[in-house]
Amino acid sequence: MENFNYYTPTQIVFGKKSEEEVGKLVEKAGCKKVLIHYGSGSVIKTGLLDRVITSLDEKGIAYVLLGGVVPNPRLSLVYQGIELCKKEQVDFILAVGGGSVIDSSKAIGYGVANEGDVWDFYAKTRVPEACIPIGVILTIAAAGSEMSNSSVITNENGWLKRGCNSDYCRAKFAILNPELTMTLPEYQTMCGCVDIMMHTMERYFTTASPMELTDRIAEDLIRVVMKNAKIVLNEPDNYEARAEIMWAGSLSHNGLTGCGTEGGDWASHQLEHELGGMFDVAHGAGLAAIWASWARYVMDADVKRFAQFARNVMECPDTGNDKEDAICGIEAMERFYSSINMPISLSELGVEPKEEQYTELAEKCSFFGKRTIGVVKKLTKEDIYKIYKNAQ
Amino acid sequence: MENFNYYTPTQIVFGKKSEEEVGKLVEKAGCKKVLIHYGSGSVIKTGLLDRVITSLDEKGIAYVLLGGVVPNPRLSLVYQGIELCKKEQVDFILAVGGGSVIDSSKAIGYGVANEGDVWDFYAKTRVPEACIPIGVILTIAAAGSEMSNSSVITNENGWLKRGCNSDYCRAKFAILNPELTMTLPEYQTMCGCVDIMMHTMERYFTTASPMELTDRIAEDLIRVVMKNAKIVLNEPDNYEARAEIMWAGSLSHNGLTGCGTEGGDWASHQLEHELGGMFDVAHGAGLAAIWASWARYVMDADVKRFAQFARNVMECPDTGNDKEDAICGIEAMERFYSSINMPISLSELGVEPKEEQYTELAEKCSFFGKRTIGVVKKLTKEDIYKIYKNAQ
Repeated sequence: MENFNYYTPTQIVFGKKSEEEVGKLVEKAGCKKVLIHYGSGSVIKTGLLDRVITSLDEKGIAYVLLGGVVPNPRLSLVYQGIELCKKEQVDFILAVGGGSVIDSSKAIGYGVANEGDVWDFYAKTRVPEACIPIGVILTIAAAGSEMSNSSVITNENGWLKRGCNSDYCRAKFAILNPELTMTLPEYQTMCGCVDIMMHTMERYFTTASPMELTDRIAEDLIRVVMKNAKIVLNEPDNYEARAEIMWAGSLSHNGLTGCGTEGGDWASHQLEHELGGMFDVAHGAGLAAIWASWARYVMDADVKRFAQFARNVMECPDTGNDKEDAICGIEAMERFYSSINMPISLSELGVEPKEEQYTELAEKCSFFGKRTIGVVKKLTKEDIYKIYKNAQ
Repeated sequence: MENFNYYTPTQIVFGKKSEEEVGKLVEKAGCKKVLIHYGSGSVIKTGLLDRVITSLDEKGIAYVLLGGVVPNPRLSLVYQGIELCKKEQVDFILAVGGGSVIDSSKAIGYGVANEGDVWDFYAKTRVPEACIPIGVILTIAAAGSEMSNSSVITNENGWLKRGCNSDYCRAKFAILNPELTMTLPEYQTMCGCVDIMMHTMERYFTTASPMELTDRIAEDLIRVVMKNAKIVLNEPDNYEARAEIMWAGSLSHNGLTGCGTEGGDWASHQLEHELGGMFDVAHGAGLAAIWASWARYVMDADVKRFAQFARNVMECPDTGNDKEDAICGIEAMERFYSSINMPISLSELGVEPKEEQYTELAEKCSFFGKRTIGVVKKLTKEDIYKIYKNAQ
């Protein structure tokens, strides 16, 4: 196995009514003025924002509001947030929402704490050296951004979707109340489940010699999400199932399921990022649509691993033929995605790129031929093009 | 499932040669003068202490030394450490060793950062309000203290062994190099494996409605430790097996395997603490010697849980009879402990209490009848006496 670092300083406050702790937690962080950052306004409709403000008020903590974060969060709003925070002397950012709101909050946090253009950190021309403290009240179990060191922002100028990883942005606390996810539309809930599974699958598929404990935890986590996704599909108000998914979402992206496996593959995420940038599709649905095409394209490079996945996660019988079992696993995953109403092709995703768009996707995803993606098989621009095409 | 808090801020640096990072990590913590705290001197013999000092020297970090920590670490050495730290203006404690050294370091850290007698925190008459920063270079995979919020100290005045839990003492970093554990005697390695398993078993046996993801992780962790304990028994230099055990040791006591299960039972630990206080036995061996007696005494209070443990961890067949399966699981665990040369009774542990000592153990363990222990079944002084007797 590989040497590894594991760092998850985020305090998790998990359970019913846990959002009522927010004032106390911001106070404990020693902060005085909060930017409450949120999305479309469902947090207003559900009364969550009121409860948050009440809790802050009780501790005498001031706040300003900035809503309007959209899926694939935009750089322009990040710039607005930075300006607002500086003007209002905000010293804490509270993300009330899902991955997009958290990622937008992290970008604002970088922008306030560092000089210069925050996009540099996403364009990878500079690295951040600080971030103002972030807290999270999670309303969507999906991105895992509440415990991760990553954020992804879309620059409308060219529709480039790029990520920035740094421990500075890790949330001080994350409040996880599964009840808050019960009002989500089914499609969004299922997209979240795919995203959660994929954060562990990306780490699972790697050429590094695996760590047994990490493998078992990873396999368990994926199975638990699959089982509870099906429960939630029929019973959206099932607290226990929502809780299993929510906690799995955080553990799936905090590094635990990658300990000793040297980072993971991440090609599927890179492939989806370009789709998201160009077509603004839901991240989880994009991942479901592209994964099997990626898997079939690369499986020969590590067929034993795909066979293990098939047997231990997808309940495929061990036929003794790794290749056969690997294919069984990929097909079983496609059936699972279909069973939770997730797309398994670009057309099911509602995307039908023109020929020049396939080329553009491959160009952008490979940084115009300047990088490969993935580790199971290092994928060139040409490989990337084929995977997109095979997914159509 | 129950609401829960999960907080593991300790940065883990895992793998070969990771101890060479220590100077950099102390520097990052912003500290200038380190107390290097250690045990019997094996860290000198193996050359580890020299490597640590070299790494600190390279970063210009000063240090003072304090060795002599023994298993069931003593309050008197803690007092010495506090005095030394104050005199030398130490601002960081580096524990180089196993659980005893880490626990002693935490107690010193409390003593330096708080006024008054540090024993108060262990006697539970006051709670600590700070701790100076702690770092760990782990040489024994066992106690999990490198990621936990607990420490246990023995007061020679009455041989009272008491614990103190507080997030203030959580280590800033823990360096985990499995190679450092290869020179341990077999007995100590196997004691460590029992301790690791028991940290999860204590959390697993609880009357709280379980969380599925936590259960699966817990069951896997125990199985992985059992499998790799047997490997290490025959191949003490097997890096991969040592690494599995070492990482399991940290995860087993950082809270992960108790998420949603409300704290766990912990009666076996309380029972062992009194044995350790009176007879100075190795902690893991004491746990192995007492566990089955505890399990048989309490199993009827939650026979379904014991049956699940038997089937999912101990590979007992599901006969449909919970009680029969529960007993199968307990017996299988006894066979496992025997197979790794661990005691399954007090006499095998080398302890033969006189009648008045049984009474004294039960008196002390129940705080002279003022508390019960455990949650699966709340155990009174009388219950405790019987469990000790049944273990003889």
